[in-house]
Amino acid sequence: MRTLSVDLGTRSYPIHIGPGLRNRRDLMAPHIDGRQVMIVTNQTIAPLYLRDLVATLDGFEVSTSVIADGETYKNLTTMETLIENLLRVPCDRKVTLVALGGGVIGDITGFVAGCYQRGVPFIQIPTTLLAQVDSSVGGKTAVNSALGKNMIGMFYQPRCVIADTDVLHTLPARELSAGFAEVIKTALIRDRQFFDWLEEYAQAVLALEADALTRTIEQCCRIKAAVVSEDEREQGVRALLNLGHTFGHAIETGLGHGRWLHGEAVGAGMCMAADMSVRSGLLDEASRQRIESLIRSAGLPSRSPGKIDQARMLKLMRVDKKVEDGAIKLVLLRAIGDALISGEYDSDMLVATLESMREESSTA
Amino acid sequence: MRTLSVDLGTRSYPIHIGPGLRNRRDLMAPHIDGRQVMIVTNQTIAPLYLRDLVATLDGFEVSTSVIADGETYKNLTTMETLIENLLRVPCDRKVTLVALGGGVIGDITGFVAGCYQRGVPFIQIPTTLLAQVDSSVGGKTAVNSALGKNMIGMFYQPRCVIADTDVLHTLPARELSAGFAEVIKTALIRDRQFFDWLEEYAQAVLALEADALTRTIEQCCRIKAAVVSEDEREQGVRALLNLGHTFGHAIETGLGHGRWLHGEAVGAGMCMAADMSVRSGLLDEASRQRIESLIRSAGLPSRSPGKIDQARMLKLMRVDKKVEDGAIKLVLLRAIGDALISGEYDSDMLVATLESMREESSTA
Repeated sequence: MRTLSVDLGTRSYPIHIGPGLRNRRDLMAPHIDGRQVMIVTNQTIAPLYLRDLVATLDGFEVSTSVIADGETYKNLTTMETLIENLLRVPCDRKVTLVALGGGVIGDITGFVAGCYQRGVPFIQIPTTLLAQVDSSVGGKTAVNSALGKNMIGMFYQPRCVIADTDVLHTLPARELSAGFAEVIKTALIRDRQFFDWLEEYAQAVLALEADALTRTIEQCCRIKAAVVSEDEREQGVRALLNLGHTFGHAIETGLGHGRWLHGEAVGAGMCMAADMSVRSGLLDEASRQRIESLIRSAGLPSRSPGKIDQARMLKLMRVDKKVEDGAIKLVLLRAIGDALISGEYDSDMLVATLESMREESSTA
Repeated sequence: MRTLSVDLGTRSYPIHIGPGLRNRRDLMAPHIDGRQVMIVTNQTIAPLYLRDLVATLDGFEVSTSVIADGETYKNLTTMETLIENLLRVPCDRKVTLVALGGGVIGDITGFVAGCYQRGVPFIQIPTTLLAQVDSSVGGKTAVNSALGKNMIGMFYQPRCVIADTDVLHTLPARELSAGFAEVIKTALIRDRQFFDWLEEYAQAVLALEADALTRTIEQCCRIKAAVVSEDEREQGVRALLNLGHTFGHAIETGLGHGRWLHGEAVGAGMCMAADMSVRSGLLDEASRQRIESLIRSAGLPSRSPGKIDQARMLKLMRVDKKVEDGAIKLVLLRAIGDALISGEYDSDMLVATLESMREESSTA
């Protein structure tokens, strides 16, 4: 097991990474203050891992909430259901929530934990690669509005993150690829050597070879923890973690949440950001090709869906948290491993990127 | 104009109190970072004060959201409507929300501000006595669940509070009395001299005599600001501000939100807390009588509704944020001006209080 720390003063917390951790009571118990625990998971994960986790937490008063699987359920309606489940037990404000699942479960459980009785503790047990390398670390919680992704949420840190690499063996290949998009993103913004390594070992990671997998998760968590420790509330450097996300969120909202996986939309979004970066004279074409090639080799899309036209993409991108006083701020690349935030690009270039980076549309 | 400060480090903010402040652009503009402002108010307040406030904010991009009046609308459905209003503009994360209204408007606007794009600034312009003396100060935001009051929310501080005493002249007498309940509460927990003064000047305050009114609001805000500065997230002393509220929330939920005003439920709740305090040997009977007498003289109920029986009250009280590991923590009184939190009372005494402090029930 490897243990990293997210350093946030009194709200610092550990990230444990390794095989077989999901039922390590010794890792969880120190973070449970009261007698009550509510595990939140989904209908896909519950049959696989819920019973063992309940048994692991024997001695606490454990309740469970199983919600439908998918981004489409990450909304205020599901949030209210979870709150009512807590109130029916009834759980008091010493209850600890446990998020057992991927990014959707982590985001909504974190938000419920942050809001229930104005805040109760929670533990992340991420079960997807995406959640293990990215979304479970850093305290971003949210649900979607029909009008925009992650528009309702808060910064609320977990008490600990337990990334059990064993659970990835039950993850569908498509989800593994989607998670790998965030791995590529992490390397792209901050770590050229890691990117070089990924070019060599991507297939090993996707084949879940133990050493490559652990190294990947650890390196991503290390970078994310450093960024979050430096800038918890995204006033500065943390915004770099949104590389590809402004494009990606527009794709997700435009298609309807859940049609493309988040990581798939981010994959296409990173290719679009790289294209914009070349057009803006920031990035060289050879690097752009390497980026696109790695993204494709992971089985991810490299273009936005043909059915969303350029004008619609632009409109969707305007409803993004990175918009300030009307300007869409984009994360662009100067080089592999070196990203910047820019609001001062030529808007014609953005239009050109949106036009040229659409799939050949037979579905328009 | 009097100005106090809530001292919370980088999140400190001023409270301005006085006549004619609601249209003082100079008090608001320093707290508006971007170009966009969304004013949230209700259908009762909008015809009275909204147009002038929009004119005051001329030069900003001002949007307005007018919701139905009443506690019954303080829920996630209204919250989602407000979020969608923001997204339709679209407002970015530099938008500033302005809460123009009573406790309901302040609570829900603060919660929306805390959650929209993970947090945008907001300004409180409280228009009820209750909001001016209590709920607009201190950063408690929330909406209700059908299963419990204020169960969904967060601590999120405003940028400033502007208490315009002029607006109280349009407030119905019943609402004025309800606000006075929180005035009495503030004196009871921390300031015996203020209580003595209230016994003499209650009718002058309720008649809106300018000096008595300003002194009352200022003293309540001073005490509240001190308590909040000491204990922002209610780990200790701040919980004393809940005197009468565990009983009161049970009454509000039991009757259905909005049947009794919050202050009315707190009025009855404080009489019940005083009764418990006497039964527990903490408070003398003469003090209890003075408390009940002042509460009655303000036109507030001093008993719980006859239609909620003792068993139901107890069940409702168990769904309260002051419950920890099963024990209902109550705020009790040792003397006028001296409160304590107790989880170690005789539960028979609580049952006796609930039995004896019900209205004679012809409505059972």
